[in-house]
Amino acid sequence: MLFDFFKRKKKSAKEAAERLHIILAHERGMTRLPFFDDLKADLIKVLSKYTNTKDSLDIRVNRQDGYDILEINVPIKNKAKRQKTPA
Amino acid sequence: MLFDFFKRKKKSAKEAAERLHIILAHERGMTRLPFFDDLKADLIKVLSKYTNTKDSLDIRVNRQDGYDILEINVPIKNKAKRQKTPA
Repeated sequence: MLFDFFKRKKKSAKEAAERLHIILAHERGMTRLPFFDDLKADLIKVLSKYTNTKDSLDIRVNRQDGYDILEINVPIKNKAKRQKTPA
Repeated sequence: MLFDFFKRKKKSAKEAAERLHIILAHERGMTRLPFFDDLKADLIKVLSKYTNTKDSLDIRVNRQDGYDILEINVPIKNKAKRQKTPA
Protein backbone atom coordinates (compact mmCIF):
# COMPACT_ATOMS: atom_id res chain seq x y z
CA MET A 1 0.00 0.00 0.00
CA LEU A 2 1.09 3.51 -0.77
CA PHE A 3 0.79 4.58 2.82
CA ASP A 4 3.41 2.03 3.82
CA PHE A 5 6.01 4.48 2.58
CA PHE A 6 4.90 6.93 5.20
CA LYS A 7 4.47 4.40 7.95
CA ARG A 8 8.01 3.18 7.50
CA LYS A 9 9.35 6.68 7.67
CA LYS A 10 7.25 7.52 10.67
CA LYS A 11 9.36 5.19 12.74
CA SER A 12 12.07 7.83 12.59
CA ALA A 13 9.72 10.66 13.40
CA LYS A 14 12.40 13.25 14.03
CA GLU A 15 13.80 12.81 10.59
CA ALA A 16 10.36 12.59 8.99
CA ALA A 17 9.35 15.89 10.51
CA GLU A 18 12.05 17.62 8.50
CA ARG A 19 11.14 16.12 5.18
CA LEU A 20 8.60 16.81 2.49
CA HIS A 21 7.14 13.85 0.70
CA ILE A 22 5.76 14.21 -2.78
CA ILE A 23 3.90 11.35 -4.32
CA LEU A 24 2.72 11.26 -7.87
CA ALA A 25 0.30 8.42 -8.50
CA HIS A 26 -1.48 7.14 -11.57
CA GLU A 27 -3.40 3.96 -12.01
CA ARG A 28 -1.54 2.58 -14.98
CA GLY A 29 1.40 3.26 -17.20
CA MET A 30 2.46 6.50 -15.57
CA THR A 31 6.09 6.12 -16.57
CA ARG A 32 4.96 5.65 -20.16
CA LEU A 33 2.97 8.87 -20.22
CA PRO A 34 4.51 11.03 -22.94
CA PHE A 35 5.21 13.80 -20.46
CA PHE A 36 6.33 11.73 -17.48
CA ASP A 37 10.04 12.57 -17.62
CA ASP A 38 9.34 16.26 -18.13
CA LEU A 39 6.82 16.34 -15.31
CA LYS A 40 9.27 14.59 -13.00
CA ALA A 41 12.04 17.03 -13.92
CA ASP A 42 9.72 19.99 -13.36
CA LEU A 43 8.65 18.69 -9.95
CA ILE A 44 12.28 18.33 -8.92
CA LYS A 45 12.98 21.84 -10.19
CA VAL A 46 10.11 23.23 -8.12
CA LEU A 47 11.26 21.35 -5.03
CA SER A 48 14.78 22.65 -5.48
CA LYS A 49 13.46 26.20 -5.15
CA TYR A 50 12.29 25.53 -1.61
CA THR A 51 14.30 22.63 -0.24
CA ASN A 52 17.76 21.13 -0.08
CA THR A 53 17.56 18.82 -3.02
CA LYS A 54 21.17 18.84 -4.08
CA ASP A 55 22.52 16.24 -1.71
CA SER A 56 19.55 14.41 -0.34
CA LEU A 57 16.91 13.95 -2.99
CA ASP A 58 15.36 10.52 -2.65
CA ILE A 59 13.44 9.46 -5.76
CA ARG A 60 11.69 6.14 -6.19
CA VAL A 61 9.41 4.73 -8.83
CA ASN A 62 7.31 1.81 -7.71
CA ARG A 63 4.16 -0.02 -8.53
CA GLN A 64 1.98 -0.57 -5.48
CA ASP A 65 -1.57 -1.79 -5.06
CA GLY A 66 -2.42 -1.12 -8.68
CA TYR A 67 -0.85 2.32 -8.81
CA ASP A 68 2.30 3.58 -10.47
CA ILE A 69 4.00 5.69 -7.84
CA LEU A 70 6.71 8.30 -8.14
CA GLU A 71 7.86 9.25 -4.67
CA ILE A 72 10.22 12.09 -3.94
CA ASN A 73 11.45 12.73 -0.41
CA VAL A 74 13.44 15.80 0.33
CA PRO A 75 14.84 17.42 3.46
CA ILE A 76 13.54 20.93 4.07
CA LYS A 77 14.98 21.90 7.38
CA ASN A 78 17.78 24.25 6.36
CA LYS A 79 16.16 26.37 3.70
CA ALA A 80 12.71 26.15 5.24
CA LYS A 81 13.79 27.72 8.47
CA ARG A 82 15.80 30.46 6.84
CA GLN A 83 13.59 31.34 3.93
CA LYS A 84 10.79 33.85 4.22
CA THR A 85 8.22 34.11 1.49
CA PRO A 86 7.68 37.72 0.41
CA ALA A 87 4.09 38.63 1.25
CA MET B 1 -5.04 6.93 6.38
CA LEU B 2 -3.59 8.68 3.40
CA PHE B 3 -4.17 5.75 1.15
CA ASP B 4 -7.91 5.98 1.78
CA PHE B 5 -7.97 8.80 -0.76
CA PHE B 6 -6.82 6.39 -3.39
CA LYS B 7 -8.97 3.52 -2.27
CA ARG B 8 -12.07 5.65 -2.48
CA LYS B 9 -11.17 6.74 -5.97
CA LYS B 10 -10.34 3.24 -7.03
CA LYS B 11 -14.00 2.34 -6.82
CA SER B 12 -14.43 4.31 -10.01
CA ALA B 13 -11.46 2.75 -11.70
CA LYS B 14 -12.24 4.07 -15.15
CA GLU B 15 -12.15 7.62 -13.91
CA ALA B 16 -9.10 7.02 -11.71
CA ALA B 17 -7.13 5.69 -14.64
CA GLU B 18 -7.40 9.06 -16.30
CA ARG B 19 -6.24 11.09 -13.34
CA LEU B 20 -2.94 12.03 -11.81
CA HIS B 21 -2.79 12.29 -8.06
CA ILE B 22 -0.19 14.44 -6.40
CA ILE B 23 0.23 14.27 -2.68
CA LEU B 24 2.47 16.56 -0.71
CA ALA B 25 2.93 15.35 2.85
CA HIS B 26 4.75 16.71 5.85
CA GLU B 27 4.58 15.55 9.40
CA ARG B 28 3.65 18.84 11.03
CA GLY B 29 2.76 22.41 10.21
CA MET B 30 3.08 22.09 6.45
CA THR B 31 0.62 24.86 5.72
CA ARG B 32 2.61 27.13 8.02
CA LEU B 33 5.87 26.53 6.16
CA PRO B 34 7.01 29.92 4.88
CA PHE B 35 7.02 28.67 1.31
CA PHE B 36 3.87 26.53 1.37
CA ASP B 37 1.66 28.81 -0.74
CA ASP B 38 4.41 29.37 -3.30
CA LEU B 39 5.18 25.66 -3.53
CA LYS B 40 1.50 24.86 -3.97
CA ALA B 41 1.18 27.48 -6.71
CA ASP B 42 4.28 26.16 -8.46
CA LEU B 43 3.00 22.59 -8.34
CA ILE B 44 -0.28 23.69 -9.90
CA LYS B 45 1.64 25.60 -12.56
CA VAL B 46 3.68 22.50 -13.41
CA LEU B 47 0.58 20.33 -13.55
CA SER B 48 -1.12 22.81 -15.85
CA LYS B 49 1.67 22.30 -18.40
CA TYR B 50 0.76 18.65 -18.80
CA THR B 51 -2.85 18.22 -17.73
CA ASN B 52 -6.28 19.77 -17.91
CA THR B 53 -6.22 21.78 -14.74
CA LYS B 54 -8.45 24.63 -15.80
CA ASP B 55 -11.81 23.09 -15.12
CA SER B 56 -11.17 20.04 -13.01
CA LEU B 57 -8.44 20.70 -10.53
CA ASP B 58 -9.33 19.08 -7.22
CA ILE B 59 -7.26 20.44 -4.33
CA ARG B 60 -7.63 19.36 -0.72
CA VAL B 61 -5.67 20.08 2.41
CA ASN B 62 -6.16 17.59 5.20
CA ARG B 63 -4.51 16.28 8.29
CA GLN B 64 -4.43 12.49 8.36
CA ASP B 65 -2.66 10.02 10.58
CA GLY B 66 -0.22 12.63 11.84
CA TYR B 67 0.58 14.10 8.45
CA ASP B 68 -0.41 17.36 6.85
CA ILE B 69 -1.54 16.45 3.37
CA LEU B 70 -1.99 18.54 0.26
CA GLU B 71 -3.70 16.46 -2.37
CA ILE B 72 -4.16 17.55 -5.97
CA ASN B 73 -6.10 15.41 -8.40
CA VAL B 74 -6.19 16.32 -12.02
CA PRO B 75 -7.57 14.75 -15.18
CA ILE B 76 -4.94 14.03 -17.78
CA LYS B 77 -6.82 12.23 -20.51
CA ASN B 78 -7.16 14.95 -23.13
CA LYS B 79 -3.74 16.53 -23.13
CA ALA B 80 -1.96 13.32 -22.23
CA LYS B 81 -3.24 11.51 -25.26
CA ARG B 82 -2.56 14.36 -27.61
CA GLN B 83 0.72 15.62 -26.30
CA LYS B 84 4.01 14.16 -27.38
CA THR B 85 7.14 15.02 -25.48
CA PRO B 86 10.01 15.89 -27.80
CA ALA B 87 12.65 13.22 -27.35
